Amino acid sequence: MIYFDNSATTFPSDRVRSVITEYLNDEVSGNPGSLHTLGVKADKLYNECRANIAKLLGASSDEILFTSCATESANTAIRGYVSRNKRSGNKIISTKTEHKATLECLEYLKAQGCEIVYLPVDGRGKPDLSVLEEELSGGDTALLCFTMVNNETGAVLPLSEIVELRNRVSRNTKIYLDAVQALGKIGIDLHKTGVDMCSFSGHKIHSVKGNGILYIKSGVNVDPLILGGGQQKGLRSGTQSLVLAKAFEEALSEACEDIEEANKVASGINDYLREELKARKAVILSPDDAIPFVLNVSFSSFESETMLHCLEMYEVYVSTVSACSSKAKKVSYVLLECGVDRKIASNAVRLSFSRYNTMEEAREFIKILDEIYDKYLIIH
Amino acid sequence: MIYFDNSATTFPSDRVRSVITEYLNDEVSGNPGSLHTLGVKADKLYNECRANIAKLLGASSDEILFTSCATESANTAIRGYVSRNKRSGNKIISTKTEHKATLECLEYLKAQGCEIVYLPVDGRGKPDLSVLEEELSGGDTALLCFTMVNNETGAVLPLSEIVELRNRVSRNTKIYLDAVQALGKIGIDLHKTGVDMCSFSGHKIHSVKGNGILYIKSGVNVDPLILGGGQQKGLRSGTQSLVLAKAFEEALSEACEDIEEANKVASGINDYLREELKARKAVILSPDDAIPFVLNVSFSSFESETMLHCLEMYEVYVSTVSACSSKAKKVSYVLLECGVDRKIASNAVRLSFSRYNTMEEAREFIKILDEIYDKYLIIH
Repeated sequence: MIYFDNSATTFPSDRVRSVITEYLNDEVSGNPGSLHTLGVKADKLYNECRANIAKLLGASSDEILFTSCATESANTAIRGYVSRNKRSGNKIISTKTEHKATLECLEYLKAQGCEIVYLPVDGRGKPDLSVLEEELSGGDTALLCFTMVNNETGAVLPLSEIVELRNRVSRNTKIYLDAVQALGKIGIDLHKTGVDMCSFSGHKIHSVKGNGILYIKSGVNVDPLILGGGQQKGLRSGTQSLVLAKAFEEALSEACEDIEEANKVASGINDYLREELKARKAVILSPDDAIPFVLNVSFSSFESETMLHCLEMYEVYVSTVSACSSKAKKVSYVLLECGVDRKIASNAVRLSFSRYNTMEEAREFIKILDEIYDKYLIIH
Repeated sequence: MIYFDNSATTFPSDRVRSVITEYLNDEVSGNPGSLHTLGVKADKLYNECRANIAKLLGASSDEILFTSCATESANTAIRGYVSRNKRSGNKIISTKTEHKATLECLEYLKAQGCEIVYLPVDGRGKPDLSVLEEELSGGDTALLCFTMVNNETGAVLPLSEIVELRNRVSRNTKIYLDAVQALGKIGIDLHKTGVDMCSFSGHKIHSVKGNGILYIKSGVNVDPLILGGGQQKGLRSGTQSLVLAKAFEEALSEACEDIEEANKVASGINDYLREELKARKAVILSPDDAIPFVLNVSFSSFESETMLHCLEMYEVYVSTVSACSSKAKKVSYVLLECGVDRKIASNAVRLSFSRYNTMEEAREFIKILDEIYDKYLIIH
């Protein structure tokens, strides 16, 4: 099996598997809300886990919230901030290349009366910062919503420029960042970034599905999305899951240990594939300065889904568009927004790598691709 | 260790541990939203899992939603129903003995302009059905929110009477039921119950923390709580977690296999303890017709927390109030609402059993209790 679909989801790492097995034990399965030793122990471990995660992300412990997924994190941050800070402005600025979790929250807020401004993006996926400056100068902007690394192209946000612009032009505007695809690939030091809220997902960094994180900078207030027993300081009710928190912590520790090495591995694969694919007349859609973990490429003569199914016959797994919108089977809205021609976009395939992929897999991928061209192009 | 705190949380069963370990495998760790075989396989298993759960609960597959916990289920059902069905009425009827997840949703809706009517409950925890009938007759009631089994006393809701009343007096009023503490203890056949929405939690039936279920009867529409990629028919966005769904399914299958046997075990323990505790002048606060899995008892001369800590020195684990409000360290609002004297309520301890508890543990509990009385009563 060659799994080049790590932006859709990753497989639990050995260390994550071990930690989950370990934390299915009675001794650590108390309810963190219980007053007795078993509860106190679970609560202590849960808080230690939160502190470790905070440290790895350059945040304080009380700025980290455990959620069930990055989508929940996005909903809590975006909707929760607007709901809590009604006087901070009626405008939200974003782009149309965001993940559906962000876009759907923005559409919800639009229906509630917020003005949503979508910045144009250029061919490399960068939002137009002159339009941003103009919009920010007009005042009334509560929130900026951006993605650190685009999940379909690997395009990297010019975050420091955006933060500088916000600081200079509209200090009270907050920044929400979707950092799901950046985690474990780009070093993240939250306090240094200058963002106010930031979401992360466990299953994109070799944890299991069902655990996410939300960073809310100290001093920034949001209304909770899930109300109830008041767990996690009232910001996220529901019995805390120590085993899932530990799974996230383990995956994050592992990812942070070898970001440099992981980038070296991914760069090797990416550089090799770019070269070989170009030689085969494929169009590389990921920008040159994208992270090496994502390579979006358009194959001539094969529609995205056809190529996906050809590849899977060889047990090679890739994506067409984002898994979160793939069931709709449309051409990628992200690529279209970046100005990619519809015909080229409809042949796009996303290859996405993790630190566990190898150069051997990359070479095997090219061999298989050649076979596919030999075998199917005539019929096609 | 004697763990008599199963209403707060349970420990993962051996079968749940096994299924989790099995489902950490690469082959079943695809993203159910992906178009390739790994995604299709995960999606198929996820849907089979949903179908099995539906069958065990007497529902149809498309009526079952996976959530991260019962608190999320409650928020989705209560707030989502009211948000979606604004013309169905402005009144919601409930009681003050509900779980915080329900109460906080109701307070949220009250702040939004809904009228919330809390029915009085009698000493056995039963809501006053004559007041309910009167309120329902007035019209304008969108929703009834009740709990099948009270988590602190084990009191059982007269559900069929309530459903009959609703059907007779106010057909369009919907019923939301919190069945968290009923699952695996009382047989539940959702279509037969007549309820419209019903929430369940995995970690109360020997699954792990971080998985819940929401039943929404076919034809009942709710607004989603978590917006995004449109997973689960748009009702709950966020990448589906097959491993957590399987954990729930396994725990539920196991619980449903031996409801009768589990009741026999719990009844044996409960009957024995009631007898022995009464002989020691303790006041039994659970009603006579409570489920046998919960026994709320007030010990003379020991405040709740003192008794809890005395017991834990012997590795016996019990609760004072609900774990979801125990950090507040207040006297149980449920007991006070049921008319229990404040002094007696402040000495209340909840013992809660699972099918894994034994008569030997019950006898050992009484021995330890006698030791505690011998040892500490003089000092106290």
